[in-house]
Amino acid sequence: MPSSIYQLATAGVQTLVPYQAGKPISDLERELGLTYIIKLASNENPLGPGEKVKQAIQASFADLSRYPDSNGFALKAVLADKYHLKSTQITLGNGSNEILELLARAFLTTEHEVIFSQHAFAVYPLVTQAVGAQARVVPAIDYGHDLKGMLAAISDKTRLIFIANPNNPTGTYLTEQALNEFLALIPEHVICVLDEAYFEYVAKNDYPDSISWLAEYPNLVITRTFSKAYGLAGLRVGYSLSSPEIADILNRVRQPFNNNALALAAAEVAIQDSDYLTATIALNNAGMQFLTQAFSAMGLPWIESAGNFVAVDLLREASTINTALLHKGVIVRPIANYEMPNHLRISIGTETENDFFISALKAVLADV
Amino acid sequence: MPSSIYQLATAGVQTLVPYQAGKPISDLERELGLTYIIKLASNENPLGPGEKVKQAIQASFADLSRYPDSNGFALKAVLADKYHLKSTQITLGNGSNEILELLARAFLTTEHEVIFSQHAFAVYPLVTQAVGAQARVVPAIDYGHDLKGMLAAISDKTRLIFIANPNNPTGTYLTEQALNEFLALIPEHVICVLDEAYFEYVAKNDYPDSISWLAEYPNLVITRTFSKAYGLAGLRVGYSLSSPEIADILNRVRQPFNNNALALAAAEVAIQDSDYLTATIALNNAGMQFLTQAFSAMGLPWIESAGNFVAVDLLREASTINTALLHKGVIVRPIANYEMPNHLRISIGTETENDFFISALKAVLADV
Repeated sequence: MPSSIYQLATAGVQTLVPYQAGKPISDLERELGLTYIIKLASNENPLGPGEKVKQAIQASFADLSRYPDSNGFALKAVLADKYHLKSTQITLGNGSNEILELLARAFLTTEHEVIFSQHAFAVYPLVTQAVGAQARVVPAIDYGHDLKGMLAAISDKTRLIFIANPNNPTGTYLTEQALNEFLALIPEHVICVLDEAYFEYVAKNDYPDSISWLAEYPNLVITRTFSKAYGLAGLRVGYSLSSPEIADILNRVRQPFNNNALALAAAEVAIQDSDYLTATIALNNAGMQFLTQAFSAMGLPWIESAGNFVAVDLLREASTINTALLHKGVIVRPIANYEMPNHLRISIGTETENDFFISALKAVLADV
Repeated sequence: MPSSIYQLATAGVQTLVPYQAGKPISDLERELGLTYIIKLASNENPLGPGEKVKQAIQASFADLSRYPDSNGFALKAVLADKYHLKSTQITLGNGSNEILELLARAFLTTEHEVIFSQHAFAVYPLVTQAVGAQARVVPAIDYGHDLKGMLAAISDKTRLIFIANPNNPTGTYLTEQALNEFLALIPEHVICVLDEAYFEYVAKNDYPDSISWLAEYPNLVITRTFSKAYGLAGLRVGYSLSSPEIADILNRVRQPFNNNALALAAAEVAIQDSDYLTATIALNNAGMQFLTQAFSAMGLPWIESAGNFVAVDLLREASTINTALLHKGVIVRPIANYEMPNHLRISIGTETENDFFISALKAVLADV
């Protein structure tokens, strides 16, 4: 009987290989008995949570035994006000990861195709396969999205396009002009998802204000998250901005209590904490400069990144270097599963963490 | 274009009507300007969260900016120890609601049928429709599951059977003997889901120890939750116990970070807090006795319940009574959508809440 249980699963699920999360610090402690460990593997915010967030969580303790507000009234109101949108245009997710999954479940069947780029976020193929739809992966150009190639890949069967801007794990970004031209050419039967998980970090004049496009494109969905610049990865809050019609559809598929009560309370405060955001971006900019200068000094190419991480080319297969780094208490992200076997993705840490990582990397490379 | 966006959704989603949550207290405050409000509508734990849980959450604040452990190592270890199972038999969900959804997404296509009882939990038809499968609803007997009727409904297309034990919203339960006979007759191509969200409340000698059946039935899934007897509805933690094969399949479909960090930390402590559970059950038993005696004294029939709620028959259409109760600051649950238009479902509250509710109900009925 055990083998036949697998045969009962849907075709897509039978061959699904789940997402590999960054190694938790506690795992490495258990495995290697190390005491000082730094994790620069999951694009987390090295500042840790802000004081206002902690206070908001404590203030919500009395409500822990109550179900959360199934409509996220208060958080949606703050987001709608911030972005000058209607609350009916917002869908809250258990991380923006869930929004990506809701899109797949609401719009895809086994008859449909989904377009995304080579080297793009690993969750796009996963949510596509879980519902049995077909992925059309368009080769990247210089590690970035080839929008012309993606347009050319559109067929009658295409239902979703995922665009990561900036892209994880490469850090490349698309300009306002390039994306605007692209959106104008997408047919009405295709929904375009702009994944902007890292948009708060982008300091580029030609990066789009994509929200202004929502009025023009009812088939546009923008996804964002509290996991990165707002420092709430542990709480799982993401959201999408779209036409009210798409939000209505996503909210039908969404579980009624997908965001927990403490997460809603924390996000409501976090999005209004501009001091925390300013400190986050300053720390990121300084760390990015430090790391990329160090890579250049070591003769290692790196991909210019608009996010809170950078992919560095080790000029050799990266997995052995990664293993050696783990033994020194440094967790970064190998990205061979993104077809980048010679790169490691490094999340920008605190000054201390960045220093420790560069020292460890130098020591490991000297031993090769 | 707006109308065509709906046409892009899958067939099941196009006609999906989302779950209606119990009215939050804050909604009633906004709508009616009331200040004293009691909510006995969502089978929440009236004790509120325990002190140990609050301490565990505060102790996890430093990790808020880190992604949660995607495998829930620590919580699964505690559950495995408690139930004498392997961790590989456990799947953690964002509430047991999510486990029900994962089962539908992992095992159902538009070709399949799902069997559940009339008057059973509203989420069963929702997760079935969301994936476009066909529901086979078997008429209840005395508000309880008709297991013979459910067996007779099995066909080659059947993939899932949902059994709620005890059932929400009726409170009826199935005995060990009845369920064991039923399981022995279920063919291998059908997965049987025993939803035991309320099992901690059941004080019946003939209620099954279903975990002992797992070794015998690889197609059995037991779902449980921290939302009821453990008082953590706001945190969204549920789990399933099954064969390792089914757990493996569910974990493929599960999002990597579906349980947030504070929820995992709280649940790990809550499941070991036996004093809290004892106090919960004592409060529930006393409240159940008080409410049912009051209903009997008022001449209102009620359904004997093994859970933390009771369905009372108002002997007339309940929606106007419900509206009148809302105006007195009492939120309970009308269950017309469960084909029980004359009943209200009352969650057992504190002594004060139960008193307030009975006084309000008497006043409202006197005005009819």
